[in-house]
Amino acid sequence: MEFSISSSRMQEVIDITAKVQAIIDKNKVLEGLCNVFTLHSTAAVIISENYDPNIGTDLLNVLDRLIPQKAGYLHDRIDSNAHAHIKSAILGAGKTLPIQEGKLRLGQWQSIMLAEFDGPRSRMVHVELLPSP
Amino acid sequence: MEFSISSSRMQEVIDITAKVQAIIDKNKVLEGLCNVFTLHSTAAVIISENYDPNIGTDLLNVLDRLIPQKAGYLHDRIDSNAHAHIKSAILGAGKTLPIQEGKLRLGQWQSIMLAEFDGPRSRMVHVELLPSP
Amino acid sequence: MEFSISSSRMQEVIDITAKVQAIIDKNKVLEGLCNVFTLHSTAAVIISENYDPNIGTDLLNVLDRLIPQKAGYLHDRIDSNAHAHIKSAILGAGKTLPIQEGKLRLGQWQSIMLAEFDGPRSRMVHVELLPSP
Repeated sequence: MEFSISSSRMQEVIDITAKVQAIIDKNKVLEGLCNVFTLHSTAAVIISENYDPNIGTDLLNVLDRLIPQKAGYLHDRIDSNAHAHIKSAILGAGKTLPIQEGKLRLGQWQSIMLAEFDGPRSRMVHVELLPSP
Repeated sequence: MEFSISSSRMQEVIDITAKVQAIIDKNKVLEGLCNVFTLHSTAAVIISENYDPNIGTDLLNVLDRLIPQKAGYLHDRIDSNAHAHIKSAILGAGKTLPIQEGKLRLGQWQSIMLAEFDGPRSRMVHVELLPSP
Repeated sequence: MEFSISSSRMQEVIDITAKVQAIIDKNKVLEGLCNVFTLHSTAAVIISENYDPNIGTDLLNVLDRLIPQKAGYLHDRIDSNAHAHIKSAILGAGKTLPIQEGKLRLGQWQSIMLAEFDGPRSRMVHVELLPSP
């Protein structure tokens, strides 16, 4: 199952937990694993805090300080988004999570987030469910 | 299955391989996948070297240099642990590993570690086993 | 299933997508999850851009700037590869990906890469396939 999500800024962290849970609900998976994978090399899927949106901003600011945009990367000779590819490779395109009693087994303050590093644009997210036997 | 583990310092790397293997043993899974997921947004699960504990210290020191504590983060206006949330988001709350012949298929020098960034406290770890059909 | 791959430089990013896909083909898995896990604590498995090899070089350069070699690490008292262990722990030894219609479900520009941080040497990669029921 796949869904698309639109980012509205160049860099942004977007909570996609409800969209993933809706796919679990629809498929009636009670126990097992859920793999959430974005099909792009300038975005990532992360597990992050869901209460204070400033944490997403803090994360993007830290990544921009450590991996600045247009900082003389070789790839920027043909494009200008090397920073986004590097951030995606470090954070990871996908995450795998447990499902328990029909719900994503996350802590109270955890959500699944799409991290956009080269937006705004539409992004595809693949959700693969593997029920326990 | 879930277990708790207590950290004893503010930041710490704790080998949890034996606890995960014990759950695999109890459930008699011979082949498949094992997802190890901590239910907190200021901790992480990593795969790291298991022989020299200095590597854990080196890792924590590098992370503190790159993502210093109380460095003017927006989130620190309401709390003081933004650095811990950022480290957790980058390292990842969970890891998925292969099981082979009833054992975690790790290299000789690899262990599963809980990385604590906002301790000391008690942490929950969820272990989801998916046997091969 | 496991395969070995030889790196030819001290640090290097090597596309291993075709080797993983060959294992899926041989095992005739049409839908499910694929876990790709390297059995070493100085290497990593990442998902990265597959068109411009300069992105791999940019990534290695960024990691070397943030986590320099022989920068006074405690572990370097007994070895000289602490930087490689730290990079491996941050990027992760394994990744889990969806399989759809018999193929790794990757985006057009995504590949599975082995990241070598302490080569050149031969590396083992474990591929665990979990078909959907």
